[in-house]
Amino acid sequence: MTRRVRVIGIGAGGPDYVTAQAVAALNSVDVFFAMDKGDAKDDLVALRREVCERFIDQPRYRFVELADPPRARDGDYHQAVADWHAARADVWARALTDELGDDGVGAFLAWGDPSLYDSTLRILDLVAQRVDLSWDVVPGITAIQALTARHRIPLNDIGEPVLITTGRRLRADGLTGASVVMLDGDCAFLDCPPDTRIWWGAYLGTANELLVAGSVGDVGQRIVDVRAEARARHGWIMDTYLLRPA
Amino acid sequence: MTRRVRVIGIGAGGPDYVTAQAVAALNSVDVFFAMDKGDAKDDLVALRREVCERFIDQPRYRFVELADPPRARDGDYHQAVADWHAARADVWARALTDELGDDGVGAFLAWGDPSLYDSTLRILDLVAQRVDLSWDVVPGITAIQALTARHRIPLNDIGEPVLITTGRRLRADGLTGASVVMLDGDCAFLDCPPDTRIWWGAYLGTANELLVAGSVGDVGQRIVDVRAEARARHGWIMDTYLLRPA
Repeated sequence: MTRRVRVIGIGAGGPDYVTAQAVAALNSVDVFFAMDKGDAKDDLVALRREVCERFIDQPRYRFVELADPPRARDGDYHQAVADWHAARADVWARALTDELGDDGVGAFLAWGDPSLYDSTLRILDLVAQRVDLSWDVVPGITAIQALTARHRIPLNDIGEPVLITTGRRLRADGLTGASVVMLDGDCAFLDCPPDTRIWWGAYLGTANELLVAGSVGDVGQRIVDVRAEARARHGWIMDTYLLRPA
Repeated sequence: MTRRVRVIGIGAGGPDYVTAQAVAALNSVDVFFAMDKGDAKDDLVALRREVCERFIDQPRYRFVELADPPRARDGDYHQAVADWHAARADVWARALTDELGDDGVGAFLAWGDPSLYDSTLRILDLVAQRVDLSWDVVPGITAIQALTARHRIPLNDIGEPVLITTGRRLRADGLTGASVVMLDGDCAFLDCPPDTRIWWGAYLGTANELLVAGSVGDVGQRIVDVRAEARARHGWIMDTYLLRPA
């Protein structure tokens, strides 16, 4: 029996970013598999519920919570991630087998887009080695598109490239050109020259959205403060920013 | 009088990529301004018509075609683009003044996302120097998200960066890491080492979609052939690809 799974990007923010394709996909789903962890859990659960309630016409779906295996915090980073993905794949394979009947359709909802700094597709590749599986992917609005839209700016200079990178890699590699930075819990932009321009956003596309733009020298500390205050208030933060060298 | 303009990303493909936010925006528009050129014109007009017919509940909108100023093909590239943007801004400023009444809402529809290799936002910045203007931006699914979704692949390796670039810059700079290439009319991937992996797509998200994946050595020439044949058949092509060094 081939189990069918859909990986549905629901956009990086409120339900307004959900596409027509995602709406059609949501309406085909019997079981939503969810694996929440960390401090954003309550808000992510609420967002998911809001998306399903708003866009699913004839509710016949249910949610299945999957236990998230622990992830090693010391040792080699890539090995720790690989071990964690393998452990997740075991959990997912068992859940797909147990929870999806014949002709059942399962789904994983991805915040933003499933292709961007998201492990769902990698884990499904591993699950497919354990269970007979077919799956498709529905793209979603990324935090990058949300950031540029809310700041009303182009991502690229005319005909020029843009790097998508992480806070860790920005610190290691330095700023070599226009760069979008994601997954930066540590304000790596502070290492850039003060005349570097920054467009920063958090909770993009939601009622809690925060936007700051300027040069790193002028607004860098303000972003640090705003970010710390918001994180303390909400219990979590998801933010991203675009940097352009002067 | 402040004129209101909305820049609406409608996604890189068929109308299925349109978001709920874009649907709400489409329904607020009185005048869609369109500036088509080149061989894709008929298909783009048809796509726009399909999007408006499918998503606008109470049609009261009209389309205004804007003449596209000629663009210099010789001389300095950046100067030619700047001149062309300034000439477009003149045309747009006049059209917004003439066609939008008090409380009228104008819109520009952007294929894909308005932030990515699209000149609409830059031209509006210039228009705002000529006419009192307020505008907002609605993000759309880019060809990058469509490409990775249809190939069911992550964009980035775990924790690693990805460059978004053009065919021209790929030829000039060489392949330095995982790269998405856009605006490549010239199959610049052929310059990459044969063991470079490529995921290519054209007419993404439409009934004419084409997908090829493999190593440049194995599938590079096939992409060249498929691309030439499709371009001849449709009269135009829009394609993009992801490269990963071996």
